[in-house]
Amino acid sequence: MERRIFNFREKNSIVHCITNYVTVNDLANIILASNSSAIMADDREEVEEIVGIADSLVINIGTLNKRTIESMLRAGKKANDLNIPIVFDPVGVGVSTLRQETSKYILDKIKLSVIKGNASEIKFLYNKEASSSGVDVDIEDIIEENNIDSYIDMAKELSKKYNSIVGISGKIDIITDGEIVYLIRNGNSLMEDITGTGCMLSGLVGALVGKNKDKLLDSTVLAMGMMGIAGDRSKKHIDENNLGTGSFRTSLIDNINLLKPKDIEEEIKIEKR
Amino acid sequence: MERRIFNFREKNSIVHCITNYVTVNDLANIILASNSSAIMADDREEVEEIVGIADSLVINIGTLNKRTIESMLRAGKKANDLNIPIVFDPVGVGVSTLRQETSKYILDKIKLSVIKGNASEIKFLYNKEASSSGVDVDIEDIIEENNIDSYIDMAKELSKKYNSIVGISGKIDIITDGEIVYLIRNGNSLMEDITGTGCMLSGLVGALVGKNKDKLLDSTVLAMGMMGIAGDRSKKHIDENNLGTGSFRTSLIDNINLLKPKDIEEEIKIEKR
Amino acid sequence: MERRIFNFREKNSIVHCITNYVTVNDLANIILASNSSAIMADDREEVEEIVGIADSLVINIGTLNKRTIESMLRAGKKANDLNIPIVFDPVGVGVSTLRQETSKYILDKIKLSVIKGNASEIKFLYNKEASSSGVDVDIEDIIEENNIDSYIDMAKELSKKYNSIVGISGKIDIITDGEIVYLIRNGNSLMEDITGTGCMLSGLVGALVGKNKDKLLDSTVLAMGMMGIAGDRSKKHIDENNLGTGSFRTSLIDNINLLKPKDIEEEIKIEKR
Repeated sequence: MERRIFNFREKNSIVHCITNYVTVNDLANIILASNSSAIMADDREEVEEIVGIADSLVINIGTLNKRTIESMLRAGKKANDLNIPIVFDPVGVGVSTLRQETSKYILDKIKLSVIKGNASEIKFLYNKEASSSGVDVDIEDIIEENNIDSYIDMAKELSKKYNSIVGISGKIDIITDGEIVYLIRNGNSLMEDITGTGCMLSGLVGALVGKNKDKLLDSTVLAMGMMGIAGDRSKKHIDENNLGTGSFRTSLIDNINLLKPKDIEEEIKIEKR
Repeated sequence: MERRIFNFREKNSIVHCITNYVTVNDLANIILASNSSAIMADDREEVEEIVGIADSLVINIGTLNKRTIESMLRAGKKANDLNIPIVFDPVGVGVSTLRQETSKYILDKIKLSVIKGNASEIKFLYNKEASSSGVDVDIEDIIEENNIDSYIDMAKELSKKYNSIVGISGKIDIITDGEIVYLIRNGNSLMEDITGTGCMLSGLVGALVGKNKDKLLDSTVLAMGMMGIAGDRSKKHIDENNLGTGSFRTSLIDNINLLKPKDIEEEIKIEKR
Repeated sequence: MERRIFNFREKNSIVHCITNYVTVNDLANIILASNSSAIMADDREEVEEIVGIADSLVINIGTLNKRTIESMLRAGKKANDLNIPIVFDPVGVGVSTLRQETSKYILDKIKLSVIKGNASEIKFLYNKEASSSGVDVDIEDIIEENNIDSYIDMAKELSKKYNSIVGISGKIDIITDGEIVYLIRNGNSLMEDITGTGCMLSGLVGALVGKNKDKLLDSTVLAMGMMGIAGDRSKKHIDENNLGTGSFRTSLIDNINLLKPKDIEEEIKIEKR
């Protein structure tokens, strides 16, 4: 990872998010915590104009409806026209035909810079086999040292197929551009005990790729490393103070806000393969 | 209450929520804090499929519109077909014709497992007389020791009429299956000083009935007891640390997350009538 | 500012909000923290009835769509008919034609009691020149001692044009009824590092004008002073405890909840011009 993108605090970016209404506030706050700006707008009448002032676009299918699907497509095409990076988060893609078809349509019609999901979501995009675990990762899809190779292959193939960075978040994170593979071993299971960790991560990826449009892989790696480190620090805070998941969520945003480049260098558990 | 449902941490359940956009994040987080999964989805195109992978359905009318009303009906009918328990939260039912008619339609067309509201909402469902206090409980509708008998009668009649568990949250909680009545005296007035306590409670009921489909009364009692105890513990936390309602909200989720079965047994102030 | 409106804790008000889905939970919680009630409702079928039980209406254009625009107009007209004060928050008005046209329509068709925005938003309403900073204030639009006169003139003219109180939030807040001008020098830049500070402020203005319908200027001044003081106290809390923006957001609501009239008198940095 190049040194220069560790200077993520220095340059502002505007992240346009078309996202679900469950975690939208967390998404905005984590983007702001990383010294970027967030603008949430999902009406067909305005998304193209807003893409026009944005540095990146985040599309998240967490609570889809016909109105927002159309906005996603319009915004995505406009972002492609303007060469603005797009981060796609296929939340719960396996759970319904609507999500599957929308994802397929987005993947077919829009050039995505980064596809970021949990192992169940990425697996579904890869082989169209759904697990039945809702929006959370399925128990069968936990990435462990002994099964990681198959997930790496999957990520690389998906990356080549769509010419996108692919990021799989999990016990071990996998990030690849189809050739180079990074693994990150930060983070912990508390991150699955609150809603929105995955969505926040996509927002953070959006913020960082917006700052370094020519460094998509490094920016995605950095965002996923930051989220994992923030998870580690937040767990420590929770454990030491006898708190629970409500405080963990707040602490995650605190720790993204407080993280300094040198903290990341010291705490990131990263492996290049 | 049977011992076995105190093992609420042991079994996961997926709770499908069609709910308002005000407290949706809290709802998801409290469900996750109780070791269940939450999936929010409100589009007519996908709600039936999502009910199909869920263990329970929560319908909350806090911010209604035509699009979501149709989804509520579709999801409700599907849940009935599949024998999946449904929790209904008639938020602010008295404040508008839209909410009244939607509630009437839901009550008429869908078999509800649990109806959970504050005293003003339950009173409205019972006698169609609206108080004018918005979505909060009306000052006239505070359940006290000296008026509790009339609320118990109301809850029992409503329960029999719709063949549903009825839960009234308030200074004293009332839960009944039409015959057996439980009263819970945990909780405090701070719970009305934040938005979402009632919605979170419905989510928690959804999580627990999803784990014990054949124990609807006990699960509802347990959920309401847990919420009250979390309220007591959170108030103590706030008072000791000189904090306010923002922290109280976070603490409520913390305390649902931290609560152990033996804590509940020790702290629940429950009476069977 | 009259003494009596310092008794803001004494009288409840119901605030009807038609607002964006990003910060709606914060908006409800800050209104509740100020001892008022909040009701969020945005469907055309019910907004007029809900205005009918409300003491004030807050219109916020943060995430517009065709459905909610119509509801804003209906609710606004009804509020005018009933002489219920309306607070208008033109979030990001410069970023899209949709927001510009909607704002224009609202300003033309509805009598607004208070228009509250950041400097970029108010400047846009005044001279229709957009900055390109999304929903955040543009760097060019920071109100400093050396440029404040031009913003004061702008606020006064806008106030006279629409016969509304105008409030500009920023490093220095400006509040005017077109003649009298108040400046408030509380608050800090952390308030821009979370989403929703502006929206929360509009909600608080709504809560206070709902309690004192005949004291629109004083109520707006009080709300903006309270928010600034809460910001100061929350920054202190964050700095002392080594926390970040996630905790700052929670602390803002805590501090609105804890603020006493005498705290405000002691801590408000107010100047009348």
